Amino acid sequence: MPSEALFAGVFARGGVAVEVSSIAWLQAMLDTEAALARVSAPPAIADTIAAACRAEGFDVEAIGRAGAQGGNPVIPLVAALRERVGPEAAAYVHVGATSQDILDTSAMLIATRSLQILFPDARAAADGCAALAAEHRDTPMIGRTLLRQALPTTFGLKAAGWMAGVDAACHALAAFVPAAQLGGPVGTGSPHIADALAEALGLAAPTLPWHAERSRITTLAAALTLLTGSLGRIGRDVSLLTQDEVGELRVADPGGSSSMGHKRNPVAAVALVACAERAPGLLASLAGSMVGEHERAAGAWHAEWEPFADLLRLAGAAASWGRLLIAGLEVDASRMAANLDDAVSRFAISPDPGAAGELVDRALAAR
Amino acid sequence: MPSEALFAGVFARGGVAVEVSSIAWLQAMLDTEAALARVSAPPAIADTIAAACRAEGFDVEAIGRAGAQGGNPVIPLVAALRERVGPEAAAYVHVGATSQDILDTSAMLIATRSLQILFPDARAAADGCAALAAEHRDTPMIGRTLLRQALPTTFGLKAAGWMAGVDAACHALAAFVPAAQLGGPVGTGSPHIADALAEALGLAAPTLPWHAERSRITTLAAALTLLTGSLGRIGRDVSLLTQDEVGELRVADPGGSSSMGHKRNPVAAVALVACAERAPGLLASLAGSMVGEHERAAGAWHAEWEPFADLLRLAGAAASWGRLLIAGLEVDASRMAANLDDAVSRFAISPDPGAAGELVDRALAAR
Amino acid sequence: MPSEALFAGVFARGGVAVEVSSIAWLQAMLDTEAALARVSAPPAIADTIAAACRAEGFDVEAIGRAGAQGGNPVIPLVAALRERVGPEAAAYVHVGATSQDILDTSAMLIATRSLQILFPDARAAADGCAALAAEHRDTPMIGRTLLRQALPTTFGLKAAGWMAGVDAACHALAAFVPAAQLGGPVGTGSPHIADALAEALGLAAPTLPWHAERSRITTLAAALTLLTGSLGRIGRDVSLLTQDEVGELRVADPGGSSSMGHKRNPVAAVALVACAERAPGLLASLAGSMVGEHERAAGAWHAEWEPFADLLRLAGAAASWGRLLIAGLEVDASRMAANLDDAVSRFAISPDPGAAGELVDRALAAR
Amino acid sequence: MPSEALFAGVFARGGVAVEVSSIAWLQAMLDTEAALARVSAPPAIADTIAAACRAEGFDVEAIGRAGAQGGNPVIPLVAALRERVGPEAAAYVHVGATSQDILDTSAMLIATRSLQILFPDARAAADGCAALAAEHRDTPMIGRTLLRQALPTTFGLKAAGWMAGVDAACHALAAFVPAAQLGGPVGTGSPHIADALAEALGLAAPTLPWHAERSRITTLAAALTLLTGSLGRIGRDVSLLTQDEVGELRVADPGGSSSMGHKRNPVAAVALVACAERAPGLLASLAGSMVGEHERAAGAWHAEWEPFADLLRLAGAAASWGRLLIAGLEVDASRMAANLDDAVSRFAISPDPGAAGELVDRALAAR
Repeated sequence: MPSEALFAGVFARGGVAVEVSSIAWLQAMLDTEAALARVSAPPAIADTIAAACRAEGFDVEAIGRAGAQGGNPVIPLVAALRERVGPEAAAYVHVGATSQDILDTSAMLIATRSLQILFPDARAAADGCAALAAEHRDTPMIGRTLLRQALPTTFGLKAAGWMAGVDAACHALAAFVPAAQLGGPVGTGSPHIADALAEALGLAAPTLPWHAERSRITTLAAALTLLTGSLGRIGRDVSLLTQDEVGELRVADPGGSSSMGHKRNPVAAVALVACAERAPGLLASLAGSMVGEHERAAGAWHAEWEPFADLLRLAGAAASWGRLLIAGLEVDASRMAANLDDAVSRFAISPDPGAAGELVDRALAAR
Repeated sequence: MPSEALFAGVFARGGVAVEVSSIAWLQAMLDTEAALARVSAPPAIADTIAAACRAEGFDVEAIGRAGAQGGNPVIPLVAALRERVGPEAAAYVHVGATSQDILDTSAMLIATRSLQILFPDARAAADGCAALAAEHRDTPMIGRTLLRQALPTTFGLKAAGWMAGVDAACHALAAFVPAAQLGGPVGTGSPHIADALAEALGLAAPTLPWHAERSRITTLAAALTLLTGSLGRIGRDVSLLTQDEVGELRVADPGGSSSMGHKRNPVAAVALVACAERAPGLLASLAGSMVGEHERAAGAWHAEWEPFADLLRLAGAAASWGRLLIAGLEVDASRMAANLDDAVSRFAISPDPGAAGELVDRALAAR
Repeated sequence: MPSEALFAGVFARGGVAVEVSSIAWLQAMLDTEAALARVSAPPAIADTIAAACRAEGFDVEAIGRAGAQGGNPVIPLVAALRERVGPEAAAYVHVGATSQDILDTSAMLIATRSLQILFPDARAAADGCAALAAEHRDTPMIGRTLLRQALPTTFGLKAAGWMAGVDAACHALAAFVPAAQLGGPVGTGSPHIADALAEALGLAAPTLPWHAERSRITTLAAALTLLTGSLGRIGRDVSLLTQDEVGELRVADPGGSSSMGHKRNPVAAVALVACAERAPGLLASLAGSMVGEHERAAGAWHAEWEPFADLLRLAGAAASWGRLLIAGLEVDASRMAANLDDAVSRFAISPDPGAAGELVDRALAAR
Repeated sequence: MPSEALFAGVFARGGVAVEVSSIAWLQAMLDTEAALARVSAPPAIADTIAAACRAEGFDVEAIGRAGAQGGNPVIPLVAALRERVGPEAAAYVHVGATSQDILDTSAMLIATRSLQILFPDARAAADGCAALAAEHRDTPMIGRTLLRQALPTTFGLKAAGWMAGVDAACHALAAFVPAAQLGGPVGTGSPHIADALAEALGLAAPTLPWHAERSRITTLAAALTLLTGSLGRIGRDVSLLTQDEVGELRVADPGGSSSMGHKRNPVAAVALVACAERAPGLLASLAGSMVGEHERAAGAWHAEWEPFADLLRLAGAAASWGRLLIAGLEVDASRMAANLDDAVSRFAISPDPGAAGELVDRALAAR
């Protein structure tokens, strides 16, 4: 059992971790093989194959280990599936496909399923920010730049800015088009079967096989990183505003400490920062994999698998933490006012928050 | 003079390097100050200010050094500009703006100007790939996966795949919306003046100030990395196909060696790989800067400046190298045929390139 | 079950994956708690606690999930351990420790155990390179620069260069000093108990608590990346030299293809490249975590856990793949000679490999 | 003029920027050519060559641009040098060397010269931390974890922790061994001349040419990143402790604002954070370049040049900022006491800082 389980409370929060598990990958691979049979084998044979394509019928750990032989888990999976369906149907399994077709299509299925879970969480976090922005349109607080008190703003404007970041990530995620992959060994397979496979799986039909054209992966990774980054910024702001010395925000259900009874740790905020710190390295790794060799890369493709799943998982965790954090955020308007008054008198500045309220209206209207 | 000049032949190729130079940044900052005066000062005063806003009137190195005092070059630039325009107009310089307004707006101007240069190069590279795809729709060659000979394809299909990658990057770049920034010290400035500034500079009006909402920067960085990655992949393929032992491609104007007279180095291909290897680290750095503090980050914002310029420059260099490489690529169809024949007989495989031609047609039709 | 299981054949090869598993982390945490009891509790109590500190007595998944509450798995583990040992001994569990003490010390135990496994594999790979260098001291081949044939060298010199890279990584790994951590909540705990804990666990005693001084983590990560990089370079060279068109090397037990019967994929070489492509992003992520806050970081520390384990696992996989690859490498000296002859005549260059043999002697003597 | 000049105040502080400038690289290249002549040409010829090897005699921008032809600036530099020394001496210029020999050796010269500057700054920063640790051994303050007040510590212990981080980086930097490079075209050149070259330049003699064995570069990059990270952590702590709401530290010479007269920005702290945020991406890029091809990489080597110089420059800037920051740090012991009292009474915790003083003694004694 990989180290992920022990840290699941922080980094596997929400439903995405299940969608990128080994079982989920395996099922997505089997879904792809089943759909391929549907679009290329006689119906009765396809029925037989599809009936066998259930993850619980396979030993995922054994398949994983056997992937060492050929360098990926598709080869042993296909062998196991062929054995399971019997010799007649076996001839119709994996026809016209190469290992990468199955893994790439599975990755797109997994992404689709993950997005269906993380997107509502991200939207809820953004909606929560919008509600805070509306509610606190005119709640004055001191704005801070370079970690120093600067000039007045409102908490509503801050929340609107948080919202804008999450919304930008959501737009990028919504624009992502997951496409099937069925190019066969060197990408010269008939596009008509690829189109049919795509339709059967609810994926977009790719114009060309994309075994070696990986912009799709980097595009999704960038969108996921926009999400972790936007939420990480909220986490950073919240962790700073909940400092004992600042006290302008409080989090619901703070975490305890293994050694200090009085501690009220802003766990969700901390988790958001942690997810955000990890995403860029994974994004860079995936972006680096764009440079492969010929019709299938000798290493760069393999290097995508785990970071792809990890980034989906982290973005899913962040979305879930973000939704939780925003939903339970308590705004201490009087402490904000006190801190602001203090700054106004100390620096002899105007208490006017400028166009903060108008900007909130504008941001909410533009959603 | 920074190290960049010595390596300019490789990494500052094309026109973008000039657009991200210190002088260009300075001019963009002055353009922003001039436009700000236009939209906020009396016309005669604005004329005076605008007339002074020419980079050649300032000592960019002195301003850069003086940036140490306040942590950015805007502060000394504003002081110098105020001195230059005289006391009456000085009161109308930089009104309502904060340093980050000027640098962020300048970054967007610089990006816009850089894209105007690199985009045509990137498009030309993609168009060149399209032309190769059409010309060699049916030129057979052996496809290779994991660096081993696999099954037949055509060079046209390979070139169509290259095209698809560059096209994807171009679409991402074309979708980027550079917006002005004018939030004032803590982002509460009137959006109406920001809108006017944006219009004056040909930039989009931001819904909200984005001092601390940096998804815009990561979005552009990701698009630029799509470009370097897509072109880097072409460079990798070309460097492999021009190997003496493979010999299926030749590059025009190969580079020489300081020590070996016979060497014909695929310099453009090497440069493309080099640009692609550098971009992900810069992208990660910029994505990491999304997590800032409050209304202006204490370090994360500053950390963006050079990587932002570097990534534009590298993408510009890559676009220029890519255009050159594709334009001069020589296809040795007979060597391709010989290598293919050899593989066909050695492995006893069919010489049929499958749907390669049809896929080329499809890809060209979909542009 | 995380996605890692499905890809274990490639990325969890060798014994390190087990040492960084959730169970292994859990046992290391329990080992730390047991040792802490040994050095701070009455002997009989310590016996009771130590007897309970066996991972099989705990539900690692439940503990992992419960980590969500306080932001790390130590809090629920300590609660479970206290419950298990009964009320009397419970008062002696986790005394003077904070969650990070347990996780940091565990990380060092895990690193120690991982290094005990990967180091022999890495050394064996280097020794294999040394043997190849000695055997092929004078086996001539064409050297290649920028992927073009250049001038003669020997395969022995190439292998000596491979050896040097792996040796450099081994030296860096051997120099790593894993230290215990026992600073208590804010790092003010008595160093004497920390020293005793370190001795009990076979770790170095830290001069100071290092909750917020993370150079140790980055240092280890860099050494691991030296290993993946050095082995990845071997993988790249082997994948290039086994190209059908080059044919100077062959790998033992090549992998098959799910779609092409004739393919002989250099799986180990591909896996080495893949591990090497992933490590830098993880290294960057860990290096970024050096910048934390105060006495314990609000996110940066948490962000270390999984990349730390992943990097150990990848380095372990690379060491195992590297050992396998080198042990089974077949050198086709006649093909090398033929390719060299071809280059010599084509380019009219001397066939003299210069000081290659002398350099091999020198490198072997310097080990 | 690259963008670096405009941002020099922040990122080119201290003397390193000059040592990694294009002129400095050019001079290092000429130093290498001169030393090569010394060890391989007749004395009179060597004198002639050495006399010509002064950077001011060459047009660095023209050489940089001309590097486009062959892919690096050595080729045009050698041509210019040969022309300058006349036909007789020209035959003795660059004998036995390849472009990479000159650039790699130059990189090591530049690193050596940079370290001579940044090391004293880093040491002074560490010494300043040591002085703060001694002076404030018993100055009580509240320790903070996860950005919340936790338990008492002393400012001396915090400063000792800062010191430990910078010391660790200094140790790593001091252990770095810059070696000459003179392998010739494919690394088969005589090691005796390489040894002589190394001695002439004050560099270590490499056992083998390291054209394709790049662990040296990653090792240095990791040490530099330890420095930026350790200093960045100080910057983060200082920026947090100088918050208006915390007020336990003040910085000398704070920076002003372009828009807010009352702001006192902790510019040095911000700059340290910014340098630390940029280094990991550059480190990852350099570590990725370990995976090259054959006897000289087709892109990975080229990709090192600018990040190598940038990372030296950033580390140099960080060392200079760190020294400045520490030297001018003002400790407000009474504010620390007030904040501590407040926490002690609010949380009903003991005011005892535990072994903080003893730990400070231990850390200072261990230097």
